[in-house]
Amino acid sequence: MPQHPRHRWLRWPSEPGRPRLAFGADYNPEQWPREVWREDMRAMKTAGVNIVSLAIFSWARIQPRAAAWDFAWLDEVMDLLHGHGIAADLATATASPPPWLTAAHPEILPVDRDGRTVWPGARQHWRPTSPVFRAHALELVAALAERYGTHPALAAWHVNNELGCHNVYDYSDDAARAFRLWLRRRYGTIGALNHAWATTFWSQTYGDWEQVLPPRRPAPGSYPNPTQQLDFKRFSSDALREHLRAERDLLRQYTPDIPVTTNFLLMGDTRGMHYAEWAAELDFVANDHYVIPGPQGLDELSFSANLVGNLAGGRPWYLMEHSTSAVNWQPVNKAKAPGELARDSLTHVAHGADAVCFFQWRQSAGGAEKYHSAMIPHAGEDSDVFRAVTELGATLRDLAPVAGTPREPARAAILFDWESWWASEQDSHPSDRVRYRREALDWYTAFLNLGIRADVVPAHGAWERYELVVAPILYMVPRPLADRLEAFVDAGGHLVTTYFSGIVDEHEHVWLGGYPGALRDLLGLRIEEFGPLLDDERVALDDGSTGTLWTDRIDVVDPATEVLVRYTTGEQAGRPAVTRRALGPGSAAYVSTRLGPAGLTPLLATLAARAGVPSELPAALRGAVELAVRGAHRFLINRTDRPLDVSALAGPGRVLAPRAVMVVTS
Amino acid sequence: MPQHPRHRWLRWPSEPGRPRLAFGADYNPEQWPREVWREDMRAMKTAGVNIVSLAIFSWARIQPRAAAWDFAWLDEVMDLLHGHGIAADLATATASPPPWLTAAHPEILPVDRDGRTVWPGARQHWRPTSPVFRAHALELVAALAERYGTHPALAAWHVNNELGCHNVYDYSDDAARAFRLWLRRRYGTIGALNHAWATTFWSQTYGDWEQVLPPRRPAPGSYPNPTQQLDFKRFSSDALREHLRAERDLLRQYTPDIPVTTNFLLMGDTRGMHYAEWAAELDFVANDHYVIPGPQGLDELSFSANLVGNLAGGRPWYLMEHSTSAVNWQPVNKAKAPGELARDSLTHVAHGADAVCFFQWRQSAGGAEKYHSAMIPHAGEDSDVFRAVTELGATLRDLAPVAGTPREPARAAILFDWESWWASEQDSHPSDRVRYRREALDWYTAFLNLGIRADVVPAHGAWERYELVVAPILYMVPRPLADRLEAFVDAGGHLVTTYFSGIVDEHEHVWLGGYPGALRDLLGLRIEEFGPLLDDERVALDDGSTGTLWTDRIDVVDPATEVLVRYTTGEQAGRPAVTRRALGPGSAAYVSTRLGPAGLTPLLATLAARAGVPSELPAALRGAVELAVRGAHRFLINRTDRPLDVSALAGPGRVLAPRAVMVVTS
Amino acid sequence: MPQHPRHRWLRWPSEPGRPRLAFGADYNPEQWPREVWREDMRAMKTAGVNIVSLAIFSWARIQPRAAAWDFAWLDEVMDLLHGHGIAADLATATASPPPWLTAAHPEILPVDRDGRTVWPGARQHWRPTSPVFRAHALELVAALAERYGTHPALAAWHVNNELGCHNVYDYSDDAARAFRLWLRRRYGTIGALNHAWATTFWSQTYGDWEQVLPPRRPAPGSYPNPTQQLDFKRFSSDALREHLRAERDLLRQYTPDIPVTTNFLLMGDTRGMHYAEWAAELDFVANDHYVIPGPQGLDELSFSANLVGNLAGGRPWYLMEHSTSAVNWQPVNKAKAPGELARDSLTHVAHGADAVCFFQWRQSAGGAEKYHSAMIPHAGEDSDVFRAVTELGATLRDLAPVAGTPREPARAAILFDWESWWASEQDSHPSDRVRYRREALDWYTAFLNLGIRADVVPAHGAWERYELVVAPILYMVPRPLADRLEAFVDAGGHLVTTYFSGIVDEHEHVWLGGYPGALRDLLGLRIEEFGPLLDDERVALDDGSTGTLWTDRIDVVDPATEVLVRYTTGEQAGRPAVTRRALGPGSAAYVSTRLGPAGLTPLLATLAARAGVPSELPAALRGAVELAVRGAHRFLINRTDRPLDVSALAGPGRVLAPRAVMVVTS
Repeated sequence: MPQHPRHRWLRWPSEPGRPRLAFGADYNPEQWPREVWREDMRAMKTAGVNIVSLAIFSWARIQPRAAAWDFAWLDEVMDLLHGHGIAADLATATASPPPWLTAAHPEILPVDRDGRTVWPGARQHWRPTSPVFRAHALELVAALAERYGTHPALAAWHVNNELGCHNVYDYSDDAARAFRLWLRRRYGTIGALNHAWATTFWSQTYGDWEQVLPPRRPAPGSYPNPTQQLDFKRFSSDALREHLRAERDLLRQYTPDIPVTTNFLLMGDTRGMHYAEWAAELDFVANDHYVIPGPQGLDELSFSANLVGNLAGGRPWYLMEHSTSAVNWQPVNKAKAPGELARDSLTHVAHGADAVCFFQWRQSAGGAEKYHSAMIPHAGEDSDVFRAVTELGATLRDLAPVAGTPREPARAAILFDWESWWASEQDSHPSDRVRYRREALDWYTAFLNLGIRADVVPAHGAWERYELVVAPILYMVPRPLADRLEAFVDAGGHLVTTYFSGIVDEHEHVWLGGYPGALRDLLGLRIEEFGPLLDDERVALDDGSTGTLWTDRIDVVDPATEVLVRYTTGEQAGRPAVTRRALGPGSAAYVSTRLGPAGLTPLLATLAARAGVPSELPAALRGAVELAVRGAHRFLINRTDRPLDVSALAGPGRVLAPRAVMVVTS
Repeated sequence: MPQHPRHRWLRWPSEPGRPRLAFGADYNPEQWPREVWREDMRAMKTAGVNIVSLAIFSWARIQPRAAAWDFAWLDEVMDLLHGHGIAADLATATASPPPWLTAAHPEILPVDRDGRTVWPGARQHWRPTSPVFRAHALELVAALAERYGTHPALAAWHVNNELGCHNVYDYSDDAARAFRLWLRRRYGTIGALNHAWATTFWSQTYGDWEQVLPPRRPAPGSYPNPTQQLDFKRFSSDALREHLRAERDLLRQYTPDIPVTTNFLLMGDTRGMHYAEWAAELDFVANDHYVIPGPQGLDELSFSANLVGNLAGGRPWYLMEHSTSAVNWQPVNKAKAPGELARDSLTHVAHGADAVCFFQWRQSAGGAEKYHSAMIPHAGEDSDVFRAVTELGATLRDLAPVAGTPREPARAAILFDWESWWASEQDSHPSDRVRYRREALDWYTAFLNLGIRADVVPAHGAWERYELVVAPILYMVPRPLADRLEAFVDAGGHLVTTYFSGIVDEHEHVWLGGYPGALRDLLGLRIEEFGPLLDDERVALDDGSTGTLWTDRIDVVDPATEVLVRYTTGEQAGRPAVTRRALGPGSAAYVSTRLGPAGLTPLLATLAARAGVPSELPAALRGAVELAVRGAHRFLINRTDRPLDVSALAGPGRVLAPRAVMVVTS
Repeated sequence: MPQHPRHRWLRWPSEPGRPRLAFGADYNPEQWPREVWREDMRAMKTAGVNIVSLAIFSWARIQPRAAAWDFAWLDEVMDLLHGHGIAADLATATASPPPWLTAAHPEILPVDRDGRTVWPGARQHWRPTSPVFRAHALELVAALAERYGTHPALAAWHVNNELGCHNVYDYSDDAARAFRLWLRRRYGTIGALNHAWATTFWSQTYGDWEQVLPPRRPAPGSYPNPTQQLDFKRFSSDALREHLRAERDLLRQYTPDIPVTTNFLLMGDTRGMHYAEWAAELDFVANDHYVIPGPQGLDELSFSANLVGNLAGGRPWYLMEHSTSAVNWQPVNKAKAPGELARDSLTHVAHGADAVCFFQWRQSAGGAEKYHSAMIPHAGEDSDVFRAVTELGATLRDLAPVAGTPREPARAAILFDWESWWASEQDSHPSDRVRYRREALDWYTAFLNLGIRADVVPAHGAWERYELVVAPILYMVPRPLADRLEAFVDAGGHLVTTYFSGIVDEHEHVWLGGYPGALRDLLGLRIEEFGPLLDDERVALDDGSTGTLWTDRIDVVDPATEVLVRYTTGEQAGRPAVTRRALGPGSAAYVSTRLGPAGLTPLLATLAARAGVPSELPAALRGAVELAVRGAHRFLINRTDRPLDVSALAGPGRVLAPRAVMVVTS
């Protein structure tokens, strides 16, 4: 786990020591006439709001022209908030450059892989590496820090907004220059870069740093150098982190005592930002999360919250945005069913969130997100949404004792690795159907189904303390990681890994001699060829499960390797599908196909049993309830639409309503 | 209905007063050697052709170089036509700029949203707002008007061709300049624009007109400002209309007595041009229509013809292009079945067309449309197509008394609104599956199925005279339109509207307080949240019908609101699906889901019955026959492939052959 | 058949006269440390390798800067090869320009149809028409020829690599200039171009060559001039051929005795290069082939090999690349099943290949093709792949007597025509579902199913010697080709052709008077309209077969035309589906729908029987075995996964193992 240089929570303007959970939203008063602001204050008090994020998209309002500043409205709002006992998470407002800036400096606009300019009209139309943008952004940050650094409402700084949501990949000449500098720092010599990128292939050897480019659009039907692609992903994440650091460092100069954060977008397929590396930059971690519809929607929320909680080192984190009901950016946007609003919020709390905030306070009447739900919907306060919001506010008030309590570590963990994610899904691979995060989520669902808590932890964190570690599609295994995995098993740990793990080193060079090169000895098997499956191919296993996506041609090469499950159909029929090599008290297991939640659940039951990791739920509640623990507080989350008898956990006669969350404090 | 400043029909060169229906085609003699021209004349007489559209793509032939003109060939063709008693609808020939012009002035080439130049090679590669193109086009128009303004064959001027078919959206710097001027005219102040565009969201406030741009490619995964998008659609339609006006005004200077038209492309999903606004610019309305294959193909033809007829204010209009058989621009191009050629043509006549013309006279041997059918196909005159053409010519001769008779207004109407079409299908909405015109067409099919005639009329026209008005997906309802709808119902009118109606004002700002804000009181209901459905979701209604696409969470808030149909499944189970609020003799009904023709037909039967609007067909013929009325002429159109006994309508023993059209004159 | 000016096979460094089959791979020693090179030599000897292709992507290694050369490593490799008796097919290394060149001369980078630059990062990022690239490439060729022209290991020159695989279509200004020159040579006058391109349509008449452009991105929804598109395809193939000639001519100046080749990519849908015209440029023909997965995968291999063999005039050709197992460029890349490696290789030999080579010798650890299989896989020599490779090496050694023997011509042929391929699949056609090569392959499968050998021969070759000629979708039939086909039938030949044949001349102008204009009289029928089918449409024929894709409205117009099969459903029900016109001893048959292999097999049985062309296999083996003949050697290829009793062909008791190939020498 990356160790944060420091962790500092919100500076509460009033009663700083009183434990409380933060509750609020993005607040965009500039969208409404002033007369609405007082109504807002009243309604916020009704709902129990105690914090808002402010000024997120206010650059054009604060600085209407190059040398003109307008703080009066913001002064008024800050004072108004403070007057009502509401704290402000004040944004640096740099997320969306105003029209005057892009008109004067079109050279800050990003350029995509195809050479197309990204134009203004939406948001985040700035190059992470533009020195011109950087200078203007820092000028704004300084102005805000100077004016509001001592304002009593100020609880935290909010750098930019959802950094990288739309502009993580920029192929402009600014990006090219910065990419070269980044590569020089990484590799030192052009020879080292040539080795890492394997440029002897296809005559790509660079003679000079100036010849290096981002992986812009290649010849049709061809693919740019894979390590160039991978390094560009690494660089792009780092370039945004540089921007984060620049704003943060400036803020710290002005207000060393105010904590600084930025809102991650750790959810679903958002993958461009290496949050495991970013987390250490912040005083506290914040995240935005929106439910991805589908059968694993709630599990995905829990998975993301769990990972955020572990990125935060178990300390409180801030749910900066989620939605009260429908969003506006999916093809079809469904409203939340009754109960889901609270269950979603409290599941985040269960995984360590001490702040529950929404986008946004009052649903917009105009603009691109007017159909995104809010705390006050278009229908107004006389609405089920606002009633549910108010009810949630009360619940959070009651849960004040939870605030500050750390996540209780589980005995099992799932390793999550951004580099394996990026690398395993690159082009020119055995199969372009591999989905890293989906496999990880399937394992998480299997843990939920069994009532075994599992922490989702970054692969370069300190996971050695866990008894059972699942590493799905751990494609990229540099030597030090291989060494750690071996030491873990040697020390009695139980490792489970899957297909397409241990294949390449940090340069995406294949470990030779038979797959999975980096883990071959540890797993006690050897694979000569991969057996990826077509979309309509299924293979049967002798435990009754069905594999899709992938198979391997496994040869067992160590007598300690036990074959747990075999293929009964397909090209690997008769060969091992799942193996487990015992190594003293420890073990290393391998699952060579995609089993999905239905197939993984019973298999994981076996593997956990042999690892001595038991379920924490009575049999009747396994699958129906998610258990999460913070200190003395046990969160029981009803994953189903039916009431559940939870007497065994919460005392006689206690029933967990459909979609409800109960907190049992011991 | 927009009132035309004047309506003037073709100037027939011979026997100007004699009633007749025009019959002909686009005639492109420049594609053929001169010896073919005399054969053309002979065959035109055989077929009954009395008019052709000429010189549509002849710019390069007429003006082969910047300062060179070649009229000799066109003189000869005009004389030849006149010698054979065939009139000419003479094009201004500006639709496709010749190579010398684009080579000398590449700055007239459009630029798409992604910044890509639209190159020559096809047609319509010109920016509607290019001053350079405009000057060259008008020079050509003047030359043609001067030379042929007094030619005896000249029956009408044909401005350009299918304006906007390929170039309606241009994002070039010329377009940006013109867009800014258009916005200044619309909004007056930059502050008014900022309000309309809700630019406080995402920091988009403009300080100066020069900062405003077309909605060019935004950050990936993001969306440009919705009102910017909507205004760009409005502007783009207007910019083309400006071009139309410029050519027309010049023509009127030269030949004040010659009527001017241009051919609309009112069909299917062609939506960029606001024809309800354009119609008033013309001396008479002309349209091109091609059948869209599928179960509602014929209904769509009738719907389009009906709307064109109403845009023409009930006066005669000109079917400028349709096809004798297959087209060439669909993935698979089917030939017409026997009878369809005549039925398609006569259905247009039934809805007011006094001219029936085809693209084109003689099928090309080369070029991009050589596989598009024509009056003389590749097979030549010895072909079923040419025989059917000749037969149609005779039929039209017999129908001469129909010429000039007005459409007989129906008692019911369907409102059609380009602005609601554009706005309801914008991005970032509750569902991106909404299809405005499909819903309107479904209602039209329901009317056809019931044998109730309905006029398709523009929403800003004078529809108050109708007894029953259906307004499908009337998404955009500015205050004045809301007032008109209320007054209509107050005066005893019967209004039916659907899901996603009455939601926004003219800036696409949501009417607050509960949906549908603009119609909430009139309908006597309130909706807190939308319930859009996923593609595979179906909901059952208690009248046995099935809803798709959309549902609403309806609360009835007025005792006069009757629930006609309820949901029995899905998230709204038990709630109202269809309501009707009686208001004195009038009523306002609401249909909250997509029922399709099968579900709408019985529902409309009920609504029409309660509105006192009866079927005009005997029960046995409902659905099988479409009835259309022009003055004393009743058109019976066989929608089926079987013979129909139409004794009840046309006299004893009369049978309507499969796919046939019978005209019964009283 | 194009006559090669000369045919010269490999110059074997040792024992030049000894018959042998070449065996080897692309060898890329620059990807590995020098210590691996000696291991390579040892393992090559183990495997039986006697030739390698060298330096294919070595430009950056050979010429690391503009004026710097590094031959030392290549000297060492060449010497090492020669020391082990391994010959070198030495590449000119021009396929992938190095970073220093593109950095200094970005004007050599191709530009796509949308105006997007093709950037470095992959390979083949060069404009075929760039004078700057050409000069640099020829400088490299000269340097290599000078240094290695007399090296004893040198067996052949390998120009560039897979010319056109990614860069055949370039729309840059260089391309525009070259296109204009090409057009001037083709047409002489701008008037002739205007006629050919039918520019009277859409006002496209050119006044000057300088106005002509490649068919760059047109207006959306529109299509560039079809003959412009077709000529651009012709030009693009020729432009690459020009590059091939330039390298070849320079090589011949230096080393007149060394044969020159380049590796075609005649397989699947690779279509941009008119290999029938290119073949004559080479001293011997070489091809790369990768199996396209699916039920006709092996047939497609045979079809391609057969065509390559005929392009080579029946003389030996060189299989330059294929794969030992999985490739890396498909969505899902399947390993080969046991036996397939050898069967694939030997099927090429059966069709005339005297060299069997793979991409590549040793599987890369890094770079874009690291997951492409090789002779030595990632697993190393201890692998089934390397064992199968070694076994194949032994088999090829045993087959040495086959070397140099010509393909034995069949009695039947399938005409293959690049121009009909290009033209029949252009846009704006009756159906965009037509697939030229798929129809040709279906006929080939039908021949295989019947045990009748058929040669796949270019349409402009000398196919008059065949008794039965099938010309599928021979869309483009200029007058001379029509005359040849008539003469062939007049002379007693049996012609079979299909839907969408004989439609246009060399300019894609339709032959008028009824389809198929160029073949109407020969076939004795006339078609007024096409009847293309939608994707889900099927029509029944009275022989029990089923048609898809296409039907024709056929009228028989000659009494000698016999209707063999009729439609029983669909719009043509009752009309002819398959006809045959007898003409003395000859005949001309027409198949008007797509029957697929299942429908074509029995139909072809009938047509072949009436043409007097018998099966060469006993009934029990038809379909199961492919027969190919080289001189006295009969190749029996087991198309199935089961053992076959081939006593009848190979002698008593002989069994052909699953997927095996047996060579029976008489």
